[in-house]
Amino acid sequence: MPHPLDSFFAPNSIALIGASRDHEKIPGRLLSMLRKNEYPGKIYPVNPNYAEIDGIQCYKRIADIGAPVDLAVIVIPARAVLDALEQCAACRVKNAVIISSGFAEEGGDSAAMQDAIAALAKRTGLRISGPNAEGFLSQIQRVAATFSPAVDVKPGVVPLVASERRIGIVAQSGGIGFAYYNRAKALGLAVSYVVSTGNEADLGAGEFLDYMVQDPATDVILLFIEGIRDVDKFLAAARRAAERRKPVIVTKVGRSGAGGRAAASHTASMAGWSAAYDAVFARYGFIVSNDLDEAMTIAAVLTTNPLPRGDRVAILTVSGGAGIWGADAVALGGLQVPELSETIQGGIKELIPSYGTARNPIDVTAQGVNSGGLQRSIDLLSASDEVDAILVVLSLSSDVRMPFKQAELKRVLGARHKPVVFYSYTLPSDFARKELAASGAVVLAGLGHVGVAMRQLVDYANFALAPPAEGTRPPALDLSAFLTSPVLSEADSKALLRAAGIAAPDEVLVTDEGGLDAAVARVGFPLVMKIQSPDIPHKSEVSGVRLDIASKGEASAAFAALLAGVRRHRPAAAIQGVLLAPMAKKGVEIIIGTLQDKTFGPMVMAGFGGITTELFRDVVYRPAPVSAEEAERMLRRLKAAPLLDGFRGAPKADVAALSNLIADVSVLAARHANEIAEIELNPALVHAQGQGVTIVDALVVKRK
Amino acid sequence: MPHPLDSFFAPNSIALIGASRDHEKIPGRLLSMLRKNEYPGKIYPVNPNYAEIDGIQCYKRIADIGAPVDLAVIVIPARAVLDALEQCAACRVKNAVIISSGFAEEGGDSAAMQDAIAALAKRTGLRISGPNAEGFLSQIQRVAATFSPAVDVKPGVVPLVASERRIGIVAQSGGIGFAYYNRAKALGLAVSYVVSTGNEADLGAGEFLDYMVQDPATDVILLFIEGIRDVDKFLAAARRAAERRKPVIVTKVGRSGAGGRAAASHTASMAGWSAAYDAVFARYGFIVSNDLDEAMTIAAVLTTNPLPRGDRVAILTVSGGAGIWGADAVALGGLQVPELSETIQGGIKELIPSYGTARNPIDVTAQGVNSGGLQRSIDLLSASDEVDAILVVLSLSSDVRMPFKQAELKRVLGARHKPVVFYSYTLPSDFARKELAASGAVVLAGLGHVGVAMRQLVDYANFALAPPAEGTRPPALDLSAFLTSPVLSEADSKALLRAAGIAAPDEVLVTDEGGLDAAVARVGFPLVMKIQSPDIPHKSEVSGVRLDIASKGEASAAFAALLAGVRRHRPAAAIQGVLLAPMAKKGVEIIIGTLQDKTFGPMVMAGFGGITTELFRDVVYRPAPVSAEEAERMLRRLKAAPLLDGFRGAPKADVAALSNLIADVSVLAARHANEIAEIELNPALVHAQGQGVTIVDALVVKRK
Repeated sequence: MPHPLDSFFAPNSIALIGASRDHEKIPGRLLSMLRKNEYPGKIYPVNPNYAEIDGIQCYKRIADIGAPVDLAVIVIPARAVLDALEQCAACRVKNAVIISSGFAEEGGDSAAMQDAIAALAKRTGLRISGPNAEGFLSQIQRVAATFSPAVDVKPGVVPLVASERRIGIVAQSGGIGFAYYNRAKALGLAVSYVVSTGNEADLGAGEFLDYMVQDPATDVILLFIEGIRDVDKFLAAARRAAERRKPVIVTKVGRSGAGGRAAASHTASMAGWSAAYDAVFARYGFIVSNDLDEAMTIAAVLTTNPLPRGDRVAILTVSGGAGIWGADAVALGGLQVPELSETIQGGIKELIPSYGTARNPIDVTAQGVNSGGLQRSIDLLSASDEVDAILVVLSLSSDVRMPFKQAELKRVLGARHKPVVFYSYTLPSDFARKELAASGAVVLAGLGHVGVAMRQLVDYANFALAPPAEGTRPPALDLSAFLTSPVLSEADSKALLRAAGIAAPDEVLVTDEGGLDAAVARVGFPLVMKIQSPDIPHKSEVSGVRLDIASKGEASAAFAALLAGVRRHRPAAAIQGVLLAPMAKKGVEIIIGTLQDKTFGPMVMAGFGGITTELFRDVVYRPAPVSAEEAERMLRRLKAAPLLDGFRGAPKADVAALSNLIADVSVLAARHANEIAEIELNPALVHAQGQGVTIVDALVVKRK
Repeated sequence: MPHPLDSFFAPNSIALIGASRDHEKIPGRLLSMLRKNEYPGKIYPVNPNYAEIDGIQCYKRIADIGAPVDLAVIVIPARAVLDALEQCAACRVKNAVIISSGFAEEGGDSAAMQDAIAALAKRTGLRISGPNAEGFLSQIQRVAATFSPAVDVKPGVVPLVASERRIGIVAQSGGIGFAYYNRAKALGLAVSYVVSTGNEADLGAGEFLDYMVQDPATDVILLFIEGIRDVDKFLAAARRAAERRKPVIVTKVGRSGAGGRAAASHTASMAGWSAAYDAVFARYGFIVSNDLDEAMTIAAVLTTNPLPRGDRVAILTVSGGAGIWGADAVALGGLQVPELSETIQGGIKELIPSYGTARNPIDVTAQGVNSGGLQRSIDLLSASDEVDAILVVLSLSSDVRMPFKQAELKRVLGARHKPVVFYSYTLPSDFARKELAASGAVVLAGLGHVGVAMRQLVDYANFALAPPAEGTRPPALDLSAFLTSPVLSEADSKALLRAAGIAAPDEVLVTDEGGLDAAVARVGFPLVMKIQSPDIPHKSEVSGVRLDIASKGEASAAFAALLAGVRRHRPAAAIQGVLLAPMAKKGVEIIIGTLQDKTFGPMVMAGFGGITTELFRDVVYRPAPVSAEEAERMLRRLKAAPLLDGFRGAPKADVAALSNLIADVSVLAARHANEIAEIELNPALVHAQGQGVTIVDALVVKRK
């Protein structure tokens, strides 16, 4: 199916606006890179100062070209860019990449120029990447529209290619995008595209991601993000990637305060709040990595291996100590390293010396390499149903010796029964890389990253999109009658929840002492009394709660004390009255919250409250709304999740009711995202199976 | 000061027992490696089949040499080794390395041969490394007594040397030991020694560690451990390393079940229990790393930099996105990336284009490299007291261009004001490595590892040995009267604690109902009643506890119910009676425990109990005994430590009393390590400052 960006990535003709003869400078380098990479289409240099450059005719103006131009690459001073774009639009140029810097990243007037570029794109239909971009590379069509030294072609160097499956790279940093490319090449990984998105006046990371997702030449996607601007396109592309099961490995930077400070200025991006990004990534099964080598290792393992059917790994080694380390690396990531059956152990023992071991890790010893035991063990393990993946741990630093026979290894890897991953504890030699590449394997050199990658492979194989939340389509309710103050009191918050169909306990708001007896009669003992004021979101700070009231006398005294206390602590607070509620029956304490993320909108959070939230940060976020099924998955990702399963002899908790409540709250927050900023149920108590959840306290914050 | 192993690492003469002419096989490779590395001393090949090998006279027997031999390297079949060692001892050979395999790692008869080797060493004074070792390398004295391909010398290759400070490598795996060496060489790190310890019949990792600690040519130590055998020597060396402030970077494998399974068989090691190892490492300030590259990165940063004075890092970059990533990498590890003062920002801004930024991360941009802004920024930051370390994030893949002037960089790095760490997001070129090495810098290529290394550098700079526990010298008490059963009841456990000077609450054991009234009178209401039996360590399993008893009637009923309950649940249990205790006042729940580690002996543990222990594994171990100061450090390492500081409005806890209690329990466990297997106080309650700790429940397990 054609994609709007086809002519961007596969242009039949390129105009180079600002072309130069000086190969040392960026404009000159662009022409040189295009030609060195053997771009097969027409190149039109545009520069009023030259008649020709390097033997190619040079044009004074774009209009002089007189032929269709699919892509204009613009490298002229910032102040001249807008005029050049107008000329491009007039000549029906389809796409432009602006390499020039000095726009939104500088602020002031320069930012206004970028706004004008965005407006021009909208008005004319010219699709524009950048400004302040490092350009792109299409390995497929040999388009090196970038000055990055990473795409330079060295004469006589034969590229290392271990896999026909390709990586597509989308980066909001040219330096990092082409660093991925540089490292992918060194490993022997094929790349389809590298695109650096710059300031994203028009084309953004989301739209480029969409291109990679639908592109049949791209098998795995590497994504480097500072802050997403085209959010809807990004989310649509993310969903499509999940549906098509095309793996996306994502790095999001600006996670720390300092990183975020820079991200907010650099390429005029908004760093956003990382938890919201992680929530989106988790929903769509993105593989998150915060390290370049680790991300590249995951990409390498994904492009050169089938997905595993389970989590059992065989470790095959020539060095006992290294094998143990390999077993630790995968086992500490949660994978299994099972002891092998007597049958398999027997088969392997025949191939190795007596001081080797076949238990798993399997140490064939150095002598086992010479005897062919290593090669045969791979064959045996590949055919076995006792393990789902094989990690080969060995030394591949030799310039002359290989522990495998190329053809035999190629045959077993080519069968793609299960992942076979190769790690060298010494630095791999070029010879070893070439030899293994010829068999379709990549040599990896970082064991920690290999452990993570194998775990991610298993997780990705198990990933399935959660069903979407239901009930978001019907029109939103009219909640204006409930949203009477910036921060709603508990009673008002619960009233709003009830209006939205979320059950809160049967409680009575007593506004003057005369109503106390009737309220006590309705609620029954023991009961709780809580001061109510839209000005006091945290009642415990004013000693505004009395528990375990067991008699009318106590209730009457508590009523007076609560009112007196708040008058003393917060004389200016508007008092609604005192809320009487039944003492909640026992349950596991839960916190459920929603908030508005400035990039992705409403988010829902769940956790166990108390120290699990405050000291161990054991909470999970998802974009709202979530279905009950997705809510249950959130709960399962909490470290303290065993609390729901009958911890220390407690009964199993009503997870179904809890999941439904989280889903309902998330739907409410999403439907009313324009009116409600935050909802917090803290605590709610989830009771034993079949007994539901009690919302003990609730708080709704109106959106400003 | 001379060290017993001086003649091992710096032998004046080497006998090669089992020398061979075949360079392809291990015995032949050994001679070849010794000569290629230009060993300056005498070499005596020993082999009855040759008169000379490669132009060197060959001896039939060791006795034929007729000259002193400092080191015998033995590569003959396992069954001939013992006889060769006897000959060595008879000829007063000082040291031997046994390369041959087929001893304890095979079990049976072969293990007995290893025992005989150990006995021979003890009897004769011959110091023996191995068997099943890969030998060693002394870079200082050019002794390559190993067949590892890593020590091969390639003609015409000039070694990369970035630092004069050297790394000493001790590895219980030859493959890994020489892989460290292989990777250190590639980074330009100088190495003093590499020793692979094999089966450690005589010389063990502890004694080799001791050598590296006292050796003036070794500045940083890399240690790879499967399981320590010479525990006392290891602990003494570890303490000496801490006292001399010589950094030890340690990897301990066999941490997972699978890894441990292999470690138990491989080189006949005992994997041990990793928490005990980590406790020992923490006490002595060892830097723990579970990844080879990460360990090497830490070693690189330590050998090429001074220790930082604080934790504030400047990130200096030429790529905005990479700079943000750099800031994240150090900030997420807990270091600070402060915004710089206007003064410094102003100074830097003069050197860089308008679209750069000086806030930190500092993006000088690619143009800022050409203008000298990068170099000048390093100078400015190095002289500034606003930051304690500098992380330079850039692309060093060029084969021809360098962003620094060698002499200027060498000057600023040579001043050693603060650490300056170089990370390249593209793969560094050989050219860049050489250029930076000439200025005394190493180029690192893994950002995650760099972040960890910088954090470790700060932690190491802040490390100080805790004062030792007092009061371990006086003779142990006679506790035999208390250790009356394999598992002591709570009452007996508390009696033992009291005898050891550890205060437990005033409680009364009631053995028949007749004693109940007097006990109630003494303890007072409200009180707790608990069934007591040495056969019931977990009372809650038999409903053996009654809380909040507030009247004589309740007490009497509870007494009967407790006895009836235990007779029903555990009819065979020996009942001591019912323990009456006052209800403890409020406090933070604590668990304190001791146990016996099979490698390191008594260990003490502290944590907050409940879900912090069971779900979040938030506990800290140290070797017992600990001083109160070390106990307080343990508490500070708990994630939930804020619970002690007045969490959520609670009063600050009596940390001094708690630390003293932990210390006292640890001293008791250590003094009586031969009689007491375990002590557990669970829970204890630590009250507000000045109000002490209440031991609510206690359990002592007698050693078998």
